[in-house]
Amino acid sequence: MLHRINNNKARTLMNPIPFSAPALSGTLARKIAQMTCISMFGLLLACNDKSTESASSSDAAAVQNTNGEKFELKLAETWQPNFPIFGDTPQRLAENVEKMSGGRLTIKIDSANKHKSPFGVFDMVKSGQYDMGHSASYYWKGKIPTSMYFTTMPFGMIAPEQYAWFYYGDGMKLMQEVYDEHGVLSFPGGNTSNQMGGWFQKEINSVEDLKGLKMRIPGFAGEVLAKLGVSVTNIAPGELYTSLERGTIDALEWVGPALDLRMGFQKIAPYYYTGWHEPATELQFLINKQAMDKLPEDLQAILKIAMREAAYNMYVHSYAESAESWASIQEEYPEVKIKTFPPEVMEAMRQANQELLEEEAKNNPMAKKIQESQAEFLRKARGWTEISDFAYLKSQEEAKAE
Amino acid sequence: MLHRINNNKARTLMNPIPFSAPALSGTLARKIAQMTCISMFGLLLACNDKSTESASSSDAAAVQNTNGEKFELKLAETWQPNFPIFGDTPQRLAENVEKMSGGRLTIKIDSANKHKSPFGVFDMVKSGQYDMGHSASYYWKGKIPTSMYFTTMPFGMIAPEQYAWFYYGDGMKLMQEVYDEHGVLSFPGGNTSNQMGGWFQKEINSVEDLKGLKMRIPGFAGEVLAKLGVSVTNIAPGELYTSLERGTIDALEWVGPALDLRMGFQKIAPYYYTGWHEPATELQFLINKQAMDKLPEDLQAILKIAMREAAYNMYVHSYAESAESWASIQEEYPEVKIKTFPPEVMEAMRQANQELLEEEAKNNPMAKKIQESQAEFLRKARGWTEISDFAYLKSQEEAKAE
Repeated sequence: MLHRINNNKARTLMNPIPFSAPALSGTLARKIAQMTCISMFGLLLACNDKSTESASSSDAAAVQNTNGEKFELKLAETWQPNFPIFGDTPQRLAENVEKMSGGRLTIKIDSANKHKSPFGVFDMVKSGQYDMGHSASYYWKGKIPTSMYFTTMPFGMIAPEQYAWFYYGDGMKLMQEVYDEHGVLSFPGGNTSNQMGGWFQKEINSVEDLKGLKMRIPGFAGEVLAKLGVSVTNIAPGELYTSLERGTIDALEWVGPALDLRMGFQKIAPYYYTGWHEPATELQFLINKQAMDKLPEDLQAILKIAMREAAYNMYVHSYAESAESWASIQEEYPEVKIKTFPPEVMEAMRQANQELLEEEAKNNPMAKKIQESQAEFLRKARGWTEISDFAYLKSQEEAKAE
Repeated sequence: MLHRINNNKARTLMNPIPFSAPALSGTLARKIAQMTCISMFGLLLACNDKSTESASSSDAAAVQNTNGEKFELKLAETWQPNFPIFGDTPQRLAENVEKMSGGRLTIKIDSANKHKSPFGVFDMVKSGQYDMGHSASYYWKGKIPTSMYFTTMPFGMIAPEQYAWFYYGDGMKLMQEVYDEHGVLSFPGGNTSNQMGGWFQKEINSVEDLKGLKMRIPGFAGEVLAKLGVSVTNIAPGELYTSLERGTIDALEWVGPALDLRMGFQKIAPYYYTGWHEPATELQFLINKQAMDKLPEDLQAILKIAMREAAYNMYVHSYAESAESWASIQEEYPEVKIKTFPPEVMEAMRQANQELLEEEAKNNPMAKKIQESQAEFLRKARGWTEISDFAYLKSQEEAKAE
C-alpha cells in the first residue's frame, strides 16, 4: 500500500497482529509448510532480537505532501530484525531508494517481530495490508504450487545460471505469469549462493546408509530424502544443537557457513556435506500491483533498478560472508571434514527428485512449462559453466594436487 | 564534464579528434599497449558499424535549465557503436539513469568512431574532456602500472569472488587509492565471465609443445607465455582468421563463445582451450571527480547505484550470451574439441606468472599491497567456492559419467 498522506488502515498494522498460518490444502502441502516454518523460525531465532532502525521509528511518521510529492511503501519481511545478509537486503533497498529519490520515496520495513506473520507475507501484500514484501517464493508452495520454482530446485542451476534464466531466459516472464492473477509483482530478492548439504555424525557411503537416518531437512529436499528412507523430523531450531549433540537426530541441514557458524554445529558434528538441494536460493521482493501503479514513473524506475541491484548485491554479500565464515571454521575447527555424497547416493536422490517433479507436472501445465524452461536453460548454461569456471577451477585443483 | 547549460568546450568534442595513443614509458609498456590495442581493435572490428542512438543524436541537443535542473554527462566508450554486451552496459546505464531521474540526468555516449581514441578514455576523463568513460582498467597499465589488477589477473579470482573482493574486501578502497591522484573515480563496469584460453591447431601436451608456437595473445598473459618460449605475435584482427587458417599462426586467444562465434574460428581450429589468464574480466566506469561533485546528491546516488547494477547485470548478460553461443557452436560444429592445458603446462604458466608479479611488486609498494590483498582474499573465497559451486558441479559431472 502506498501512502501519499496519512493512512488509517496502514497504521492499524503497527499493532501486533496474531500469527496467521498460510491457508493450505492437502497433507503434503501442510507438511511442507510446517517444515518450512520450522526451518525459517530457526533462522529467525538464530539472530539477535534487537529492533531495526525502521521498526523502531515513529509509527506516526508524517508523510509530507510537498511539490516533490512524497510516497511511503510499507514492507513486511519474513525475517526478524537484524537478520544478517537476508535482512540487509531490504535495508539496502530502502536506503538506496531514499537517496536516489531525494527522500521522495521511503520504504518502511516491518520485521517478523512486528507483523507476527513471517509466512503470511505474500497474503499481506496480495491483500494490500502491505505494499511490499521480502521473503522467498517457495514459502507459498502450499498456496501456489509453482511458486517454488522461483527460489531454487534440487539439482538445479547455480546462481549466475539462474540469474541468466530470470533475466535473459524465460524466468521473469514465467514468474510474473504465476503471480499475475494475484495482483502481485514478483522480483528476485537476493541469492544466498550454494547451500551446504548439512552436518552429519556419520559418513554416508551408500543409499543403505540413508535408511532410517534421522535428519532434520525441510521442504522439497526433505521429501526427496523421505523417498529414500530417511526419517525426516521436525525439531524446533532452539533444540537443534542439543538434539544433534545427544543423538536425537543423526544429521541436519541448515544454510551455509555464514549462518551455520553462529549455530555452533561445527563443535559437535564431524562431517559437513556439500550441497545438492538448494544450489542457488533466490529470495523474493513482492509488490502489490496497485501500490506500484500509484507511483510516478521515475519512482517506479528507481524501485525496480534498486531491487535488481539489491538482489545481485546480496549474492556477492553472501559469497563474501560465506568465505569469511568458512575460513573461520577451518581455522578454529580443523577437525571438520568436508564430504560430498558419493555418485550412487547422488544418483538416487536425483531420481527421487525427478519422480517428485513428474508428479508436480502431471496435472499442472504451468509446472510442466516451468520445468521444461528450466531444464532447457540449465542444459545450455551448464554447458558454458563446464568449460568456463568449472574447467578453470578443476585445473587449479589438479595443479594444487601435483 | 557536466552540463548545466550549453558548454562550448564540450561541443567542440563533437568534431572528430585525431587518434592519440596513450603516453607510454618503457619498451614493455609500449609492447603491452600495442598488443592490447590490437586485441581491442579486433573486438571493435568484429562488430557492426552502425551508429548508436546516442552517437546519431543531435550535436546541439539543448540542455534545459528548469526547476528540476538538468544535467548531461558525456561518456566516451572504448568500443565501437553497437558492440555487443560491452557496449550494452553504458547504454543500459544511460537508459536507467534517465528514467530514474525523470530526465534530469542524461548520459550522452560517444563511441570510438566518434572520439577516435579508444585507449585514450582515461586521459580524456582525467582532463575533463569527457565526464565519464567505459573501458577496462588494464588498458592504462603503461601509465598506471597497478591499474591492471582491477580488471582480472591470470590464475586469479572468478567473477563472484572478485565482486566480493571489490565490495566486501579491499578492492574498491585500493582501486580508488590508485585513481585518486588523477582526480578520477573508478567503478566496476561489467564482467565478461571467464574467458577461454584460445583456439589451437594442435594439442598442447607439454611445456615443450609451447616452444616456438606462434600465438596471438595480448597483454600480461602474452608475457607469461613468452617466458615459456611461445612466439607471441601481433596480427591485425581483420587478418586473424586467414592467419590461423593458413598457418601463419598456430593459435590465438580471443574472448569466449559469445564473441568468438562471430569471428568464425570454430570453422578452422579443432581445439578450443579453457581459460587460465582472464578468469573474470571486469570492465570499468570512470568519472571525472569534479563532474561527479557538481551533481546534486540524489543524482550522484542514482548514478552510483545504476553503475553497480549495470556492472552486475553485464556479468549475467555475458553468462547468458556465452551459454547460447556455446550451444550453437556445439550444435553446428560438433567436431570442436574442448581441451584444458595439462597440469604440467598449467604449473609452468603459473610459475612464469608468479615471477612476473614479483617483478611488478619489487619496486612498487602499491603493487605489492594489491597483490597481497588479492592473494589473501582469493585464499578465503576459493575455499568457499571449492565446497559450494565447485563441489556441486563436480558431483553432477561424476553422476553424469556413471
